[in-house]
Amino acid sequence: MALYLPSDINDTIVALSTPPGIGAIGIIRLSGNESITICNELFFGSDLTKQSSHTIHFGTIRDGKEIIDEVLVSLFISPKSYTKENLIEISCHGSPYILQKILQLCLKKGARLAKAGEFTMRAFLNGQMDLSQAEAVADLIASETASAHKLAMKQMRGGISEEISELRQQLINFASLIELELDFSEEDVEFADRSALINLIVEIKTLLEKLMISFQLGNAIKNGISTVIAGRPNAGKSTLLNALLNEERAIVSDIAGTTRDTIEEVVNIKGVPFRMIDTAGIRAAKDAIEAIGVQKTFEKIEQSAMIVYVFDPKEISLEEAQTDIQQIAEKNNVPLLILANKTDLLNDVELNEIKNWGKQNFDQNFISISAIKQSEAQFLKDLLYESLIKKDVAQESVLVSNVRHFDALKKSDEALSNVLNGIETNLSGDFLAIDIRQALHYLGEITGAVTTDDLLGNIFSKFCIGK
Amino acid sequence: MALYLPSDINDTIVALSTPPGIGAIGIIRLSGNESITICNELFFGSDLTKQSSHTIHFGTIRDGKEIIDEVLVSLFISPKSYTKENLIEISCHGSPYILQKILQLCLKKGARLAKAGEFTMRAFLNGQMDLSQAEAVADLIASETASAHKLAMKQMRGGISEEISELRQQLINFASLIELELDFSEEDVEFADRSALINLIVEIKTLLEKLMISFQLGNAIKNGISTVIAGRPNAGKSTLLNALLNEERAIVSDIAGTTRDTIEEVVNIKGVPFRMIDTAGIRAAKDAIEAIGVQKTFEKIEQSAMIVYVFDPKEISLEEAQTDIQQIAEKNNVPLLILANKTDLLNDVELNEIKNWGKQNFDQNFISISAIKQSEAQFLKDLLYESLIKKDVAQESVLVSNVRHFDALKKSDEALSNVLNGIETNLSGDFLAIDIRQALHYLGEITGAVTTDDLLGNIFSKFCIGK
Repeated sequence: MALYLPSDINDTIVALSTPPGIGAIGIIRLSGNESITICNELFFGSDLTKQSSHTIHFGTIRDGKEIIDEVLVSLFISPKSYTKENLIEISCHGSPYILQKILQLCLKKGARLAKAGEFTMRAFLNGQMDLSQAEAVADLIASETASAHKLAMKQMRGGISEEISELRQQLINFASLIELELDFSEEDVEFADRSALINLIVEIKTLLEKLMISFQLGNAIKNGISTVIAGRPNAGKSTLLNALLNEERAIVSDIAGTTRDTIEEVVNIKGVPFRMIDTAGIRAAKDAIEAIGVQKTFEKIEQSAMIVYVFDPKEISLEEAQTDIQQIAEKNNVPLLILANKTDLLNDVELNEIKNWGKQNFDQNFISISAIKQSEAQFLKDLLYESLIKKDVAQESVLVSNVRHFDALKKSDEALSNVLNGIETNLSGDFLAIDIRQALHYLGEITGAVTTDDLLGNIFSKFCIGK
Repeated sequence: MALYLPSDINDTIVALSTPPGIGAIGIIRLSGNESITICNELFFGSDLTKQSSHTIHFGTIRDGKEIIDEVLVSLFISPKSYTKENLIEISCHGSPYILQKILQLCLKKGARLAKAGEFTMRAFLNGQMDLSQAEAVADLIASETASAHKLAMKQMRGGISEEISELRQQLINFASLIELELDFSEEDVEFADRSALINLIVEIKTLLEKLMISFQLGNAIKNGISTVIAGRPNAGKSTLLNALLNEERAIVSDIAGTTRDTIEEVVNIKGVPFRMIDTAGIRAAKDAIEAIGVQKTFEKIEQSAMIVYVFDPKEISLEEAQTDIQQIAEKNNVPLLILANKTDLLNDVELNEIKNWGKQNFDQNFISISAIKQSEAQFLKDLLYESLIKKDVAQESVLVSNVRHFDALKKSDEALSNVLNGIETNLSGDFLAIDIRQALHYLGEITGAVTTDDLLGNIFSKFCIGK
């Protein structure tokens, strides 16, 4: 898949950079050698080829004699632009007709339509940013929560690249020394100090592992955690969801089986969006509509990343609960939290019995609360977060949120393990060099020091047009 | 309705100016005295208070220490801006989260959210444009066809204002002279030359009438003409629509009653968008679904601005056609074109009979074609256009497209008629002066020389936010 041919890179590209639709302002962006001259041919005002970078010019865009719009043209002269190329932004009235017309005029004058993410790809290819930073641009635009935004911003400002690049440079030096040994292989010299190499690799592996662990949280922040609330009818699932949301969202009633459709609400716990899915009860359905509800519940359980099983100890026995739990666990092997609800209705003896049963069978994953008391919802929030995120993952450090980066880190780590094994078993330098180069390759893929057309095509095709 | 209090005008306003949604770029606009200092408090890069107008500055927007986004700030210093006030545009990543956050920060620093159209209202109040030009901005953004765009652009560039303003100025001079006479009323002098005044009023009235006639075309271009195609099942209504559209849109079949739902397609005839509405046949329905179709047809007929009645002379008699036509004419008194279809199936005698009947009963409004031949569709297009637009309306002159302007022109014209009558009947100067002032008032309302809060509120509340 040669998404971006070398010739493409010299084209002048154009795209609508603001969201489609009617608005006060719409912006058309041009980038490439010819962008200033192309715009100048359409623009009547000052001569754009004679202006300084970072200036704005008022005038009209014309098609022959016909005025298409009164516009402001912003001028960015290479290399002082987003793409490091000559770049023009035409700010016009946000009318789809006008925007379409001006786009067409730019095409007529020799520009071509930009592919998704092509402006940012050029920024990367021209050294404005590395690949992980370019990827963060898309994450930044898509971010919906404060944590996801913070994460993307950190990555865009070079977070993960900084962590990796210095150690990678040291590893490159070692690889060169070992490769040098190969040239002198008959003389049996060692330019590369093996114990220093071991120390470096251990240091890198420690970092890689820290980053890989951070993916757990980073990915959760970026993509959210799909969490199913399951249990029998009237166990208090909807009440529980309301307590978590701290407001009335689901229809709560005393009639068992009120919740027919699945309801999804986002509960933000320490920056991680838990997408809570309230479900119809799991029990033998009385009618066809209820049967569909029960089936949907099991489908949701199968797709979820975390499950909360809720039961009312006054309504069902511990044996019945155990049966439900087993049934759920068979469907999906994700973290399963057991919640004994409506504890306000129990006496001390009953409550103790439940708690002992819970601790014995589910240890940390058991909790007993009264969901009707909103204050107790916090216990469940803490438990949800702790079940997902290992305690040693701190939010302050760099978090990996990109599955591509995670894979590359893992492969790099494996290659480095091979290097360590090789040194231990006195493998010859040429084999060590191969594994080190492998590790470097994967590390390089993260920052884009190593790329392929496929990789770039894959990454930038997910961007919006005009970015 | 005091939509805009005087104090409001001194506020610094802020709004998202690009369409909502995710995109490459989103723009937040600030206008007012404090806009530069407000932005400067959030912006880390250069000191915006020390920069020249029409320059662009790269930096970050921060909330305390937290970086919200990397942005480009465009600076426009009063009076060199759209609103003639200090104006800032913050170009950030098109993420709803980021845009929301930056908006909030601007509000926190003392800006307030702009009302719909408030930037353009300030441009008007500060003399950047007159009222008819400001109104054209909204028309420009909403324009969907080349003609509507051209119309709005002409108006935005001052078309109607230019036509009116000089004559209005002359009329003001006359009014002053007549009012001067009142001060000397006991001396019985005439400062204002009555025959010159008559000439001027006749000149103005000629212009006003030209403009009022142009409203017919201007309004059609701007709003389109809702045109119903009615007739019995299998009369060839769908084929006719396809011929007009020059492509297959409606489902055409030989089975009578194929078209159940009404279909609406836009046929652009000399820049006027005719919204053609294909309908189910008008006849006694055989089943409930068809009955709904027939009922809908009559509803559409009642709401339309033009009707084309199509019949197949091989299928129904001229008497039956006449009955249909009468039934339609009773429903709605708009231009009704009669189209005898499928003339390719008639011999010369039959065709002549039909044509004579048509000319006799409907004169110019009758046409006979074979809709299956697309070339003949042009005859109908010409007829549609001519039935709507009087021949002496030229597209080249200024067209009135705004119903508010049309009303003002009409009222002004009436007042001027009163002046003429007054002069004829030797009415005293004070009465003439009242009528002249009345005419001036209505002319002034068009350009905004005369305004009220109500009028402004009414006009600008129809704009989008951020414009």
